[in-house]
Amino acid sequence: MTVVSNSYVETSSRALVLRDAFESGRLVKVAGAHDGLSARLAMEAGFDAVWASGLEISAAQGLPDVSLLGMAEYLAGATAMQQAVSIPVVADCDTGFGGSLNAAYTMRRYEGAGVAGICIEDKIFPKRNSFLDAGQKLLETDEFGSKLEAAKKAQARPETLLIARTEAFICGMGVDEALRRCHQYVDAGADAVLVHSKSAEAGEVVSFMRQWQHRAPVVIVPTTYADFSVQEAQEAGISMVIYANQGMRASVKAVRDTWAVVLAEGSTASVEPHIATVKDIFSLSGIDHWLGDDK
Amino acid sequence: MTVVSNSYVETSSRALVLRDAFESGRLVKVAGAHDGLSARLAMEAGFDAVWASGLEISAAQGLPDVSLLGMAEYLAGATAMQQAVSIPVVADCDTGFGGSLNAAYTMRRYEGAGVAGICIEDKIFPKRNSFLDAGQKLLETDEFGSKLEAAKKAQARPETLLIARTEAFICGMGVDEALRRCHQYVDAGADAVLVHSKSAEAGEVVSFMRQWQHRAPVVIVPTTYADFSVQEAQEAGISMVIYANQGMRASVKAVRDTWAVVLAEGSTASVEPHIATVKDIFSLSGIDHWLGDDK
Amino acid sequence: MTVVSNSYVETSSRALVLRDAFESGRLVKVAGAHDGLSARLAMEAGFDAVWASGLEISAAQGLPDVSLLGMAEYLAGATAMQQAVSIPVVADCDTGFGGSLNAAYTMRRYEGAGVAGICIEDKIFPKRNSFLDAGQKLLETDEFGSKLEAAKKAQARPETLLIARTEAFICGMGVDEALRRCHQYVDAGADAVLVHSKSAEAGEVVSFMRQWQHRAPVVIVPTTYADFSVQEAQEAGISMVIYANQGMRASVKAVRDTWAVVLAEGSTASVEPHIATVKDIFSLSGIDHWLGDDK
Amino acid sequence: MTVVSNSYVETSSRALVLRDAFESGRLVKVAGAHDGLSARLAMEAGFDAVWASGLEISAAQGLPDVSLLGMAEYLAGATAMQQAVSIPVVADCDTGFGGSLNAAYTMRRYEGAGVAGICIEDKIFPKRNSFLDAGQKLLETDEFGSKLEAAKKAQARPETLLIARTEAFICGMGVDEALRRCHQYVDAGADAVLVHSKSAEAGEVVSFMRQWQHRAPVVIVPTTYADFSVQEAQEAGISMVIYANQGMRASVKAVRDTWAVVLAEGSTASVEPHIATVKDIFSLSGIDHWLGDDK
Repeated sequence: MTVVSNSYVETSSRALVLRDAFESGRLVKVAGAHDGLSARLAMEAGFDAVWASGLEISAAQGLPDVSLLGMAEYLAGATAMQQAVSIPVVADCDTGFGGSLNAAYTMRRYEGAGVAGICIEDKIFPKRNSFLDAGQKLLETDEFGSKLEAAKKAQARPETLLIARTEAFICGMGVDEALRRCHQYVDAGADAVLVHSKSAEAGEVVSFMRQWQHRAPVVIVPTTYADFSVQEAQEAGISMVIYANQGMRASVKAVRDTWAVVLAEGSTASVEPHIATVKDIFSLSGIDHWLGDDK
Repeated sequence: MTVVSNSYVETSSRALVLRDAFESGRLVKVAGAHDGLSARLAMEAGFDAVWASGLEISAAQGLPDVSLLGMAEYLAGATAMQQAVSIPVVADCDTGFGGSLNAAYTMRRYEGAGVAGICIEDKIFPKRNSFLDAGQKLLETDEFGSKLEAAKKAQARPETLLIARTEAFICGMGVDEALRRCHQYVDAGADAVLVHSKSAEAGEVVSFMRQWQHRAPVVIVPTTYADFSVQEAQEAGISMVIYANQGMRASVKAVRDTWAVVLAEGSTASVEPHIATVKDIFSLSGIDHWLGDDK
Repeated sequence: MTVVSNSYVETSSRALVLRDAFESGRLVKVAGAHDGLSARLAMEAGFDAVWASGLEISAAQGLPDVSLLGMAEYLAGATAMQQAVSIPVVADCDTGFGGSLNAAYTMRRYEGAGVAGICIEDKIFPKRNSFLDAGQKLLETDEFGSKLEAAKKAQARPETLLIARTEAFICGMGVDEALRRCHQYVDAGADAVLVHSKSAEAGEVVSFMRQWQHRAPVVIVPTTYADFSVQEAQEAGISMVIYANQGMRASVKAVRDTWAVVLAEGSTASVEPHIATVKDIFSLSGIDHWLGDDK
Repeated sequence: MTVVSNSYVETSSRALVLRDAFESGRLVKVAGAHDGLSARLAMEAGFDAVWASGLEISAAQGLPDVSLLGMAEYLAGATAMQQAVSIPVVADCDTGFGGSLNAAYTMRRYEGAGVAGICIEDKIFPKRNSFLDAGQKLLETDEFGSKLEAAKKAQARPETLLIARTEAFICGMGVDEALRRCHQYVDAGADAVLVHSKSAEAGEVVSFMRQWQHRAPVVIVPTTYADFSVQEAQEAGISMVIYANQGMRASVKAVRDTWAVVLAEGSTASVEPHIATVKDIFSLSGIDHWLGDDK
């Protein structure tokens, strides 16, 4: 098993890892997580970065992803993740938790927590998760642009990434609107754009890429178009691919299956060989770092 | 899938569920958890109660179970769990987080969070996880008795359970010392005792049960003696069986396997059929309760 | 000095204290606070209840009262206050921290913390403090009514108070609009209304009272019309008077004066006779309760 | 009124401000605080640094300073303070919240929060406030030395200060024991020592200074020997003077007096001229920074 390092990494260098990849054209692979352990598993697997997923953080609390939690809870989650890994954490910050002042405050606090970048989206607060059918509404472009400007102005370290996420496709708008919005977001200071789609095919993002012409790095979240590979993404000119929630979904399936067997059989005997060991949990929680030879 | 209820349950009635089971001789089956989602999965599976596991809460933060986290973090975890489920939460409270005053404060705060019971153990603070080989030391019985008395005195609702956990077997002491300690703990006010063992066989707890003669309900955590079934536990006169960490361990295995495939194949296509759906996550996070017909 | 009691008080009885006063026509005097200590000082002075002030909680964090903090931080403040006092805490919950779902979640969480009542206002989120000149905008009445209904529906204990606060006067609207709104808010389920005014005279609230005809209890916050006495309020039929921020303002003045002298004189010798003793701080923090004879 | 700056200051430069003062022989004047507002008032007054006081943080929560709160609550307080000011925050970290692992974790987390330095003391956990008569016990010197070494080893930024505090005088030991301990603490890596005394005279610390011979910077907390001036401290060779709790004590007196008048007179009219204005609170909470011209 990968030995998990707790060693200190300069905050700025984590953001630079992402900027370097963007410049060199190396696709950044990112795994969604919601706590220190799931972040460690992402790092251990070999992902380049961790996505502090709003859906996962909410679900972990037993709450739907509909803006019930505020910045404090999201920030606590992202902080735990960034403390657990040496790779960069990119934080899903919903709509920036309100208006322009909130976007500025969000940038300030997340930088304080040492994350490499934050992502805010152009939906109206309170938002609902993009995969819910409920009517999704977008902010006017200028208003969202103001939020981006406020966040950039509040930024203390030049390397921190501000990713602007458009929900244009999610709201049934076409590629032209997605492009128009993303251009304006980059004008407002965004360092990258996340173009979200809940289509079963990658067509939306691919047609976006054709016309975008590399103006700024593009991030995608291929949850519904799961067939779209990193190779195809790289060829399309995409800079970052986020697998936002598959870890938690794998976890839910496994826990369900495990508890069903335990209750059916009246003991854990038959599940033991199929689950991680207690020692694995110790290792993942950094026991070697903390106890060293003193175990 | 089981529809998860968010409906309010009177705090006191949750503790009474456990007391009723103890009196009627119905064995209580408990699953370890560390956040709202894992607590929901335990309830959904059909467990009677949730164990707010210190090992899991620490590991979820990316930290080993060696008293690095304090009451605040444990309490936040237990609160999230109790809010997510209508079944009782029993909180693993380590050593009570210090001395007698801390034990009293622990009782007060956990009662405030609505949990059904708390469990404190007779190791010395700062403690190390019982499955670590590191030398484990116990408090003098009188001193631990004082902590139990302080916790009981601070208790506001008569039905709340105080479980005293002895680590006598963990520390290599025999059944006589375990019995001596447990009797004294019940004298000091404990409502139940947890007799921990890391033996590969159930022999230690079974011999304890033979001489204990039902003085107070007994709780076990059969992590290492996984073959010991609930039927055997019931026959031995045990009142509660806690599967303290198998859920998290199943989760770790599943996430590892999933991320390995995703990185190897460059897409999530082949894992999709084997993991829970996004809709499952929504359901588990109570979307029906929150959005009702408005999805 | 008043001995501060830490003894447990049934949550429900605290709300009933307020309901009883409303019914009996006894005016409830409330002091603003922001932490456990300031709540204790309010109780010690003889106030009937504590106002968990949003302005004070924000300012204590070093932040302006413009919705930068979310429910988590406000709730943590209210929880600390309610734990510190046996009198009821009424929590200033801004706009309910978002839309109807947030209002429901707010009710659920604050009830979980044991507060006696919550107050939400009809400004648009993110809001700005009522005493700021910045353009203040109100929600449509129906929309705010939906928030009140959502909060009431989420309420678990029948006695918990939901106070609807209108900022009609703050926004330059007249008494008719204030009345129209308050009637609709009571229709939607509000247990009381808070009619805020930043006029230098009590005229606005007095004219409101004349036409309101005791439909539901009325709460006022006479910050700017400081001459308006509790006797006058009682005669006008008002049920609750909140002195929302004078404690913090007194504190700021005293700390400024004290530090100025200390730095000018190079020692604390001359301020010592004019400040509370360390022993006072111990008493206020409940040392007698916690250490008893063991000091 | 001093305009409060929210502007970003490099974490490392705040610690260097203290190190520079130590080297140049300029005495550092520090005011105790417990939240963002009290920290701002300290900065506004002209203090060089803020002491994140354990007594004040506990008392603010309504709890005595007897280790009921853990690192999480203390850290949250220190974080709010450091975010509110550009001057350095030195954090009172009690005993380091447990053993050597806790001391290491404390250093790691406080550095993550950007504080300039932490201070840990040689009392046994759970500790009681030094001004309580309750029997105070010290750790063996070697054991405390191990905690200091663990904290230094966990330190990521070389400039962060680790202050070792001895309670030798508090426990009735003489100057020889205080000296012996402090020398050993510097050997173990402490960057400065805090020599605490609850004597009514400065004699203890002065005699310490005579024999200490400037081996490392010395910090004092002249709460009980209030006559001892900064001039005298400077002459004695002391590097830092902390006025640890006078701000809160001034606040308590003022709030008490204010509420007494308000309740006696039935209005705030007569206290208004003697307390800070609402506008003062806005200014202190950084309204100019956040709203700029948009007020």
